[in-house]
Amino acid sequence: MRVMGVDPGLTRCGLSVVETGAGRKVTALDVDVVRTPSTMPLAERLLAVWTAAEFWMDTHEPDVIAVERVFAQHNVSTAMGTAQAGGVVALAAARRGIDVHFHTPSEVKAAVTGNGNAGKAQVTAMITRILGLQKAPEPADAADALALAVCHSWRAPMIARMAEAERRAAEQKKVFEQRLAAQRRGKGSAGRTVTGGVR
Amino acid sequence: MRVMGVDPGLTRCGLSVVETGAGRKVTALDVDVVRTPSTMPLAERLLAVWTAAEFWMDTHEPDVIAVERVFAQHNVSTAMGTAQAGGVVALAAARRGIDVHFHTPSEVKAAVTGNGNAGKAQVTAMITRILGLQKAPEPADAADALALAVCHSWRAPMIARMAEAERRAAEQKKVFEQRLAAQRRGKGSAGRTVTGGVR
Repeated sequence: MRVMGVDPGLTRCGLSVVETGAGRKVTALDVDVVRTPSTMPLAERLLAVWTAAEFWMDTHEPDVIAVERVFAQHNVSTAMGTAQAGGVVALAAARRGIDVHFHTPSEVKAAVTGNGNAGKAQVTAMITRILGLQKAPEPADAADALALAVCHSWRAPMIARMAEAERRAAEQKKVFEQRLAAQRRGKGSAGRTVTGGVR
Repeated sequence: MRVMGVDPGLTRCGLSVVETGAGRKVTALDVDVVRTPSTMPLAERLLAVWTAAEFWMDTHEPDVIAVERVFAQHNVSTAMGTAQAGGVVALAAARRGIDVHFHTPSEVKAAVTGNGNAGKAQVTAMITRILGLQKAPEPADAADALALAVCHSWRAPMIARMAEAERRAAEQKKVFEQRLAAQRRGKGSAGRTVTGGVR
C-alpha cells in the first residue's frame, strides 16, 4: 500500500509518500515541503498547495492519503489556514476517489514514538530510525508528514477491522429493527383483531 | 459587475449572485443553499461544496467572489469545517483567475443594516428590502450569501481605491529607498575619498 502523508499548512505544508511492506516494514519514497509567502492572497496560497498535492498524486499514485487533523491552536487564524490547506488536499484526493483519513497529532506521536505527548525532536529522531534515513528530515513539517504516513500505514489494519465491525453492527441493527418492526406489526394486527372481537 | 456571495459551511453553504448597477443599485440573480449530511466523510462534503461552487461559476460567470471571513466560533470544529468550505470555494475561484475577497460578518452587517451587531432577522429584512424581493430569502444562510454579495458590491469602489493607494504608497516607498540608497552610496564614497586624502 502506498500512503501519502500530509502535514497541512499554508506557510509550510509537508508532503511525503511511504510504501508499506510485510509486517511493520515501511519505506520512504519521497518527502518535501511546499511553502507559500504570507503576503500572497489566501486563494492563491490554497491554489499553490492544491497544485503541489495534485502533482504528488499524479506522480506517486497513492492508495490513501493521511492528513493531520487540525485542532484549535493558540493562534486561531493560523489554525484556520492549516484547516483550509488540509481541506484542499482532501478535496484533491476526493476528486480522484482516493480515500482520506485524518489522524490527530497525538495519534501520530503515539504511533511513532509510543508517547502521545512526544516532542518534535523525538518524533524526528524516531522517524529517521524507523525509515532508516541517512539524515534527519528537515524542517519539522517534513518529519511530521513522514510520521503521518507511517502512522496510517500501521493503523490501517486496525482502521479496516473497525470499519468492518461497524459495517457488521449496522447490518445486525438493521436486521434487528426489521424483526422488531415485523413483531410489532404482528402484535398490532393481533391486537386489532382482538379489539374487533370484543367490540 | 457580477458578484457571487458565499456564506461558507459544510452543513449549509449559502450561494448567491448579484448584479451591480449604477450607484448603489443591486439586483439578485440567484440564491441557493447547498447542504451536505454530517454523516458524509469530510473529503466528500468538501467535494460536494466544490462541485456546487464550480457549477455556479460556470453558470453565472461572476467577476468576483465575496466570501465570509471565518473567525473562531463557540464550536471550534464547526469553525474548521466552515473555514474549509470557504477555502474550497476560494480555490475554485483562484483556479479560474477570479478575484476573491473576504468580508467579516460585522462588515457585512454594517454594510447592509448600518449596524455591525445587527441580528439575523434584521439582516434578512434589510436584504429583502434592498433587493426588492417578493419574500424573505430562507434559510438565514441564503440571506447571508445575498448580504455578502451586496456588501462587496458596495465596498468594491472603496477596496479598489485602497488598493490603488497602497500600490502608490509602495511605489513611492521604492523610489524613496532608491534615492536613500543612492545618497548613502554618494556619502560613502565621498567619505572614503576624504579619508583617502587625509591618509
